[in-house]
Amino acid sequence: MNVNERIAAVRALMAEKGIDVYYIPNEDDHLSQEYTAEYFQCKSWISGFTGESGCVIITKDFAGLWTDGRYFTQAENELKGSCVTLMRMRQEGVPDAVDFLVDQTPEEGTLGFDGRVVSAAEALGLARRLRFKKAKLVTGSDLAGEVWGRERPSMPAAEIYTLAKKWTGESADERIGRVRQAMKKKGADVLVLTALEDPCWLLNVRGNDIACTPVAYAFAMVTMKKVSYYISKEKLNKKVKDYFEKIHVTIRPYEKLAADLSKLHGKKIWASLNQLNADLYSHLAEDNSIINETSPVLLFRAVKNSTEIRNLKNAHVKDGVAMVQFIRWVKENVSKGDMTELSAQNYLYDRRAEQKDYIEPSFHTICAYQANAAMMHYSATEDSYAEIRPRGVLLVDSGGTYKDGTTDITRTIALDELTDTEKKYYTMVLKGHLALMRAKFLYGTAGSNLDILARGPMWQMDIDYQCGTGHGVGHVLSVHEGPHGIRWGLPRKSEGERLEPGMIVTDEPGIYLPHEIGIRIENELLVVKGTKNFYGQFLGFETVTYCPYDLDAIDVKYLTDEEIDQLNDYHAMVYEKLAGLLGEEDRKWLAEATGKIEKK
Amino acid sequence: MNVNERIAAVRALMAEKGIDVYYIPNEDDHLSQEYTAEYFQCKSWISGFTGESGCVIITKDFAGLWTDGRYFTQAENELKGSCVTLMRMRQEGVPDAVDFLVDQTPEEGTLGFDGRVVSAAEALGLARRLRFKKAKLVTGSDLAGEVWGRERPSMPAAEIYTLAKKWTGESADERIGRVRQAMKKKGADVLVLTALEDPCWLLNVRGNDIACTPVAYAFAMVTMKKVSYYISKEKLNKKVKDYFEKIHVTIRPYEKLAADLSKLHGKKIWASLNQLNADLYSHLAEDNSIINETSPVLLFRAVKNSTEIRNLKNAHVKDGVAMVQFIRWVKENVSKGDMTELSAQNYLYDRRAEQKDYIEPSFHTICAYQANAAMMHYSATEDSYAEIRPRGVLLVDSGGTYKDGTTDITRTIALDELTDTEKKYYTMVLKGHLALMRAKFLYGTAGSNLDILARGPMWQMDIDYQCGTGHGVGHVLSVHEGPHGIRWGLPRKSEGERLEPGMIVTDEPGIYLPHEIGIRIENELLVVKGTKNFYGQFLGFETVTYCPYDLDAIDVKYLTDEEIDQLNDYHAMVYEKLAGLLGEEDRKWLAEATGKIEKK
Repeated sequence: MNVNERIAAVRALMAEKGIDVYYIPNEDDHLSQEYTAEYFQCKSWISGFTGESGCVIITKDFAGLWTDGRYFTQAENELKGSCVTLMRMRQEGVPDAVDFLVDQTPEEGTLGFDGRVVSAAEALGLARRLRFKKAKLVTGSDLAGEVWGRERPSMPAAEIYTLAKKWTGESADERIGRVRQAMKKKGADVLVLTALEDPCWLLNVRGNDIACTPVAYAFAMVTMKKVSYYISKEKLNKKVKDYFEKIHVTIRPYEKLAADLSKLHGKKIWASLNQLNADLYSHLAEDNSIINETSPVLLFRAVKNSTEIRNLKNAHVKDGVAMVQFIRWVKENVSKGDMTELSAQNYLYDRRAEQKDYIEPSFHTICAYQANAAMMHYSATEDSYAEIRPRGVLLVDSGGTYKDGTTDITRTIALDELTDTEKKYYTMVLKGHLALMRAKFLYGTAGSNLDILARGPMWQMDIDYQCGTGHGVGHVLSVHEGPHGIRWGLPRKSEGERLEPGMIVTDEPGIYLPHEIGIRIENELLVVKGTKNFYGQFLGFETVTYCPYDLDAIDVKYLTDEEIDQLNDYHAMVYEKLAGLLGEEDRKWLAEATGKIEKK
Repeated sequence: MNVNERIAAVRALMAEKGIDVYYIPNEDDHLSQEYTAEYFQCKSWISGFTGESGCVIITKDFAGLWTDGRYFTQAENELKGSCVTLMRMRQEGVPDAVDFLVDQTPEEGTLGFDGRVVSAAEALGLARRLRFKKAKLVTGSDLAGEVWGRERPSMPAAEIYTLAKKWTGESADERIGRVRQAMKKKGADVLVLTALEDPCWLLNVRGNDIACTPVAYAFAMVTMKKVSYYISKEKLNKKVKDYFEKIHVTIRPYEKLAADLSKLHGKKIWASLNQLNADLYSHLAEDNSIINETSPVLLFRAVKNSTEIRNLKNAHVKDGVAMVQFIRWVKENVSKGDMTELSAQNYLYDRRAEQKDYIEPSFHTICAYQANAAMMHYSATEDSYAEIRPRGVLLVDSGGTYKDGTTDITRTIALDELTDTEKKYYTMVLKGHLALMRAKFLYGTAGSNLDILARGPMWQMDIDYQCGTGHGVGHVLSVHEGPHGIRWGLPRKSEGERLEPGMIVTDEPGIYLPHEIGIRIENELLVVKGTKNFYGQFLGFETVTYCPYDLDAIDVKYLTDEEIDQLNDYHAMVYEKLAGLLGEEDRKWLAEATGKIEKK
């Protein structure tokens, strides 16, 4: 079946069930925002668009894919030839997907979706708006899944494993204790942990159910007396079972959470309606009250303890070694003529994999040559990749998950002498990147207060990179993690937007000129305490990514003395961290790559 | 009666009426945040603190004044010798005033205040929190007013006047039309305008009831058919009465608003509970529903039309002429030995007053010598002012209201060769000021996204100026106006924080080192459209303040080439705007003061 046939089949089912508008979001039953098991990838299967963000809406005579600026070019290519219209989110004249759903549902009509993969908050919002039209909501129908049928992959079933205290710095008991304290403060009787990362963090276990993120499909329910872990039994080996017994965690079948929720009565249940799916929500009796707030585990996860910080720095040292080996290899071999995006990213995968305690890539590497790099989330595949020639730049955004921690780094590599314009762009991105890196700020500052430091040099040129500047990074968990971030505009919600010592955030401004060039530079920054004085507690950043920028891509005339000093200091630190771990040739290369630069 | 006796008298009344905790806020019956009629200045009368922000709380055995960082030094001085404790807001260990009120009210106790000068929102919040303590609220008692007695000034009664369309660019009819459209959108039957500026803007009238702001004590009520204006009759002369008749505005006695509100039933009433006093709120019948949102007039006021923009630029040209005359006079006469903060500020008042269509100062001038300038809202008075010697700096923050518009400008003047440290501080403030001035940003940007541009250079030195960077400025109305502003942290509310073309905002970073020095540089910026492209609509600022910075105070070594170019361009523009309006000597002086500077 091709995309058009799949959509026709969904339309046939819609007609059969009296559904006027059908909605296929991107999420799984945990409302994961990024990687999901293949089982849940209905949006991609039905539309042919393989990007990690977006949704599909199907009506009798229209099928549209909504996705954001990061994916426009990719989606344009992947949707070519199908009946699916690309809806460019946040562009003038493009309706919001949710508004469109409501708008397209006729008076007294029906809107349908699979309630397992839509949040309770979204479903309640839609129901409220549809009421004005006397329209109804049908949430029990997985039409794309039905059409997919026997070809649909099954749910993953990888074994989970424990992560010792030497990696996490805190036992599950201690973490459960902290969570119960937070519950007491809110007066919660029950906490339902639905985000995939939350039970992993709480119980110090990791899994292998989805790509690039060491988590398992599981839920947890915490009360003052009991911790229940909902997971398919096949994922538990003897060692893990013993562990759970020792820490008094009750194992329950994955699919029993709905039934267990329906047994709760008169309880104060802490569950974010943004993170609880509509199907589970429908099982809650009305005599409970809901504390609709983000799980306390999100903030606990975001603030790293001293063991995690020591370990993650170690992970970044290993990552730096792999990156240096890789960049030197690219620079020295690109003119030989047989380098491709695919061979390059494989070379880098191998360098990381050689490192001790390596688990997996922390996300799909973006190894994008010149114009391909303008697609922010471009992916070279076996079917489609470019040759890398000794001209322009190679943008490589990659990371590794080690038992020590999770990394995320981007470097843009000059493959030959760049044009003046290319150098100017690289240097402007670097200026923004450095400005955020050296920022000092009072406690209370949110990411939205700092974004312009990184974005400013691009805005001054009437260019925008159309995405956030930075995101949190999990500890041996998701590479993208909240609640904080570096973004412009008004914060989505106030809580948790504040930067706290111990948080990790990326610093990754860029320039993306469609069909021309893409440049991005990314380090991870650790929020640390600075001076405390009359004015309050100052905070700042310690850079934990150790890898040189590309001196071949910099036009020094755009840098201030302060920026030159900062760059030289950073490069000296990188050399000091990595030199001892590199072979002779790599070390020599690094010494040059981190050599002092001067204002001409 | 001295302060201690006044407080003792209030305590006697509290005992009589069974009130445990008594609260005296800063506001008038319109909840004005800054200037109020003397009649309403209970907080100052009772405590001796004359600053424009703060509140007093009195219990059996404690009296405290809460005020913010701008006023710490002033309050320290003014409270000396009284029983009133200075509560430094937002400093570690200092409880929030509202928390303190609730905390100090005993179980089943009583908290009292004058409901006319506390917002409905604040009163409702307090009532809700007191309910947990079974405590009650008494809102009918103006105890400070009772003690003040016959010495209390009466309510002001100045005549109001109309402002022709050539000044405002829009007739009252047109403005009423816009307001009714906004009401329709919200489904409001009635709009109650309580902010002093709102009826003035709507009806194109101005008054003279409070210092430095051309407004009258009045309310307005707008329905789809009728506009009622609540004002004391003695303020209306024949010409104004005819005007209101012509535009079909019904005049009602000031004190009848409460009674008219109580006649409303089954209506959707638009009134911000933050801006409606608790006494008026108590007159609303329960069968009405309240649209508790900021008045639409706030945003209408903030976005200036083309006539207002043309006029306000004219006002700034006049202001620039006065400032140039003043600065030259200071510099040339400071060494003669008889200059004081008072004589200097009077000299400046006179220069503004000579300008055409001048109305009044737009706020009390801050003319503060060296260490006095560290008090952000310092005021020299007849009783207390410093001599100005040819050493250090003079900070002058002043503005005028002209029929053309309202101005607000700060310059810090070097009185002699400054020390290296003083120059460094001046230059850092200038760097922040210039960075905000030249910012470009996409539509959707809020002031909280931009604040760091101005504040950054100070934070990098572990210094903070402990207040916002900028505020809106009214058009022949308050010099401080929302809804926007340039502040760090999380926005108070999302709505209206976005910068819109046509808004005016000040750019006034500073450095304030208690007992040492104060430096501030302030221009007004107009938000203007920039490039519109693939990324969206870019905005930027056009500077509408025309007055040189002090080249004697700048250490060029701290400036980048970009900053030097920007400064030279600004100075060239200032010279071009003002030179033709100055006398020979002033023009010569300005030519030098705006001369090109270069990197050494």
